[in-house]
Amino acid sequence: MHLEFWFDFGSTYSYPAAMRIETLAEQRNIPVRWRPFMLGAIFKQQGWTDSPFNIYPDKGRYMWRDMERVTSQLQLPWRKPSQFPRNGLLAARAVCTAPNARWVPGFCKAVFRANFERDEDIAAPEIISRCLTNSGADAQQVLADTGSAMTKERLHEQSRMAIEQHIFGAPSFLVGRELFWGNERLETALAFAAGTTSFPTRE
Amino acid sequence: MHLEFWFDFGSTYSYPAAMRIETLAEQRNIPVRWRPFMLGAIFKQQGWTDSPFNIYPDKGRYMWRDMERVTSQLQLPWRKPSQFPRNGLLAARAVCTAPNARWVPGFCKAVFRANFERDEDIAAPEIISRCLTNSGADAQQVLADTGSAMTKERLHEQSRMAIEQHIFGAPSFLVGRELFWGNERLETALAFAAGTTSFPTRE
Repeated sequence: MHLEFWFDFGSTYSYPAAMRIETLAEQRNIPVRWRPFMLGAIFKQQGWTDSPFNIYPDKGRYMWRDMERVTSQLQLPWRKPSQFPRNGLLAARAVCTAPNARWVPGFCKAVFRANFERDEDIAAPEIISRCLTNSGADAQQVLADTGSAMTKERLHEQSRMAIEQHIFGAPSFLVGRELFWGNERLETALAFAAGTTSFPTRE
Repeated sequence: MHLEFWFDFGSTYSYPAAMRIETLAEQRNIPVRWRPFMLGAIFKQQGWTDSPFNIYPDKGRYMWRDMERVTSQLQLPWRKPSQFPRNGLLAARAVCTAPNARWVPGFCKAVFRANFERDEDIAAPEIISRCLTNSGADAQQVLADTGSAMTKERLHEQSRMAIEQHIFGAPSFLVGRELFWGNERLETALAFAAGTTSFPTRE
């Protein structure tokens, strides 16, 4: 079974998930579909106009410390971004120009590294252009396509799908109808996709 | 180093943590202090008058399914309680009559099992009385002591301490100044208490 990886480029916990998912999925022979969406649109539905990590100080304080610990345990580079959350709209649209292209995983990881390793503004076209080039995409063409009506509609459709599938946070992993939320659920989601873990039927 | 286990008797994810913590802590030779607190008091500070699992339907829907999966993976019995969240005030006061008594861990686990295995009303004195007796406490004496000013003040003090330590959810594990939130962080918290895991210094 394949796994859908739903994430937002501004989401802190999506970063370790993005950096880990390819190796872990290949080991278990699970195809992964990368599905960026606009988490802010979902937050708005819940009445939040900002990240809950900014709205609730203790939640935010905890998350920033936890990210130091999680990235240290995974031996991932980490620098707290000077702006949070960053706007991942352009990066998400870039993926939507060619959702199944070979360069997509490398591009997504490059964007996460720009945001959380180098504290770069991922809303800036020059940053996205560099991430595209470094992952083997035609940066000029992709950036031009991000402005097309079809690309914009694809991203809207993707965010609608996230809502329909009851996704409420990022990262989320969807395997069939089974939803898993949070970086530390990645292994369980992959085990379920591989058929090595099963769960009781739904009530 | 010892570990403080902060939990609310009504909290779903506190149940698997409570059922697992003794064995895991003994294996690592870590003393555990059981610290019930009133999570509702912390939610109120954030402007919530109910559990976020009730306020945000997708979060709640996910949690109930996740509890089926988590308890199945841990081979713990599970029955969705017909009332959520249940009021853990009486049970928390019972612990506060003698926070370091030998019967405390057994009593806490008995209350969690009443709530999440048998769908019993843990706010009812007869249920708490049975849990006390089964864990070797003098039920009549403890129940009488729950009404004392000293007991009530101890629980207030405990909930104030939770807020001071920036606790925002349950279960939480506190090791020195290091806070860990969520059932799936229990192993990491214990490894840190045992000195087998270290983290970067705080920024």
